[in-house]
Amino acid sequence: MIAALDPVGIAVTALSGALLAARMRQTFVTMAFFAVLTGVGGGTVRDLLIGAPVFWVHNAWTAPVCLVVALTVWFSPARWWQGESTRVIEWADAAGLGAYAVLGTAKALALGVAPVPAAMMGVITGCVGGVIRDVVAGRPSIIMRPELYVTPAALASAICAGGTVAGLSNMAVWSVAALAGFGLRGAAIHWQLGLPAYGHVKDGDR
Amino acid sequence: MIAALDPVGIAVTALSGALLAARMRQTFVTMAFFAVLTGVGGGTVRDLLIGAPVFWVHNAWTAPVCLVVALTVWFSPARWWQGESTRVIEWADAAGLGAYAVLGTAKALALGVAPVPAAMMGVITGCVGGVIRDVVAGRPSIIMRPELYVTPAALASAICAGGTVAGLSNMAVWSVAALAGFGLRGAAIHWQLGLPAYGHVKDGDR
Amino acid sequence: MIAALDPVGIAVTALSGALLAARMRQTFVTMAFFAVLTGVGGGTVRDLLIGAPVFWVHNAWTAPVCLVVALTVWFSPARWWQGESTRVIEWADAAGLGAYAVLGTAKALALGVAPVPAAMMGVITGCVGGVIRDVVAGRPSIIMRPELYVTPAALASAICAGGTVAGLSNMAVWSVAALAGFGLRGAAIHWQLGLPAYGHVKDGDR
Repeated sequence: MIAALDPVGIAVTALSGALLAARMRQTFVTMAFFAVLTGVGGGTVRDLLIGAPVFWVHNAWTAPVCLVVALTVWFSPARWWQGESTRVIEWADAAGLGAYAVLGTAKALALGVAPVPAAMMGVITGCVGGVIRDVVAGRPSIIMRPELYVTPAALASAICAGGTVAGLSNMAVWSVAALAGFGLRGAAIHWQLGLPAYGHVKDGDR
Repeated sequence: MIAALDPVGIAVTALSGALLAARMRQTFVTMAFFAVLTGVGGGTVRDLLIGAPVFWVHNAWTAPVCLVVALTVWFSPARWWQGESTRVIEWADAAGLGAYAVLGTAKALALGVAPVPAAMMGVITGCVGGVIRDVVAGRPSIIMRPELYVTPAALASAICAGGTVAGLSNMAVWSVAALAGFGLRGAAIHWQLGLPAYGHVKDGDR
Repeated sequence: MIAALDPVGIAVTALSGALLAARMRQTFVTMAFFAVLTGVGGGTVRDLLIGAPVFWVHNAWTAPVCLVVALTVWFSPARWWQGESTRVIEWADAAGLGAYAVLGTAKALALGVAPVPAAMMGVITGCVGGVIRDVVAGRPSIIMRPELYVTPAALASAICAGGTVAGLSNMAVWSVAALAGFGLRGAAIHWQLGLPAYGHVKDGDR
């Protein structure tokens, strides 16, 4: 099941990169570059950190999926990606965020990484592709916005690492963790939730 | 032959980093940092991704070459690097772009990487040093400009990967690929070619 | 002794990341992300480059130390980190800079890296965490400022590499190198020393 989900997840993440390039009126080459960067960025950093072979380098289909996404965005009518479908993509991305956070944490735990760094690998898998995309694009990174994005990834990763350490069954832990991440990110999309900033908390203290 | 070309290629790439630091009126330390970053950046990312030992870390001369380039720029008269020589440097960089794209692709293929990711390693070797340099310098990265720069690297890498998969002789494939990359980049310099941006294509569709 | 210093060093570096997030009025999640990024960034890049296992991934306490630092900054009164204590933190950071430059160089030399690239690993260990932090935060990186920051790390690293190549005793070389780096950074803090920029030197030439 995970094997079937994986191309879909990569495609959704790559799509967010390609659409950013479209919004910034970039060329096709830039669009392809961003699709690859966003699609594989988080997992790449995770694999380098835990010392695993980088997943898409020794896998023949991952990079082509990203290129096909870029080609699709380039040649399709712009209205496909506007209005209602923006919302669909955002929800697909929320599902991917939960799934990747769990996948990243589980892979790190399987390689013998300690729980706290393993949970960080989940956050990295879910979020770092988007951070690199934003830094290269020269716009404020998602990590610098109050929007709840990293937090759902952290929640899913923490539940996954905690549940595994507690010895619960993998299937149960993974499902609950991914759903929790997806749910929190979905709530943030629906109610436009954000975290309080440093100043606000201090103001409240007074 | 490749062994003899290599220090020259590194020096040309390092030079582009050092000259950017000079144009931005930076200090010598920043200039040295940029020379190293630009000179070895692309090959470093490639080696990390394909799991090879990072080429300049276990090689005693690569890093000193970058430092010598920075020292040369710092102590030489500024006019050495202006006017006519800008053009010479640009053409040397074009030759390096083609050669590095082929070198990166061939190294990845030799390590058993599949053709599409291997071609991407060629693009990374040729371009990522410049992208990192621009991101650290806080200026719009070369990947965000319509200028034909990544495209020649992609062309050379694709020909190299395609020809190797087709079983053609290495020497023929490498030469054709490097020349095609150099030729396209040269044409872009000479006629100031650029790729169409996303909006333009859509406007034309109407 | 080094084992005892290490958590302190990580904490001081992580603190600089957490405090930047506080000054930028970010959320707690961003603060934690910055504490980790700054605390482990330089050592991570060094370990990837020299092919060593990334130090904090296979170590259960390093990541938690960074998180505790972020929690401390978040829940403590803002005045703890202002006025006089800014100075204390800056001096602690100077001590860490010297120590990390030596640690990075020595680790690379121990793994058989040649002297010049090994000295660069020292600079990377001391400075790259801060560079990544600044790039992700979208502000001018420390490498782009004339302030003497990279230079003390380069001095400590060069002494460490040079002394080791000359066959001097490790303890003597390490102490002198770390003290030289700390001293130069301290002098820069005290007298606000900076390096001359490229333009100034050229103006002086005329």
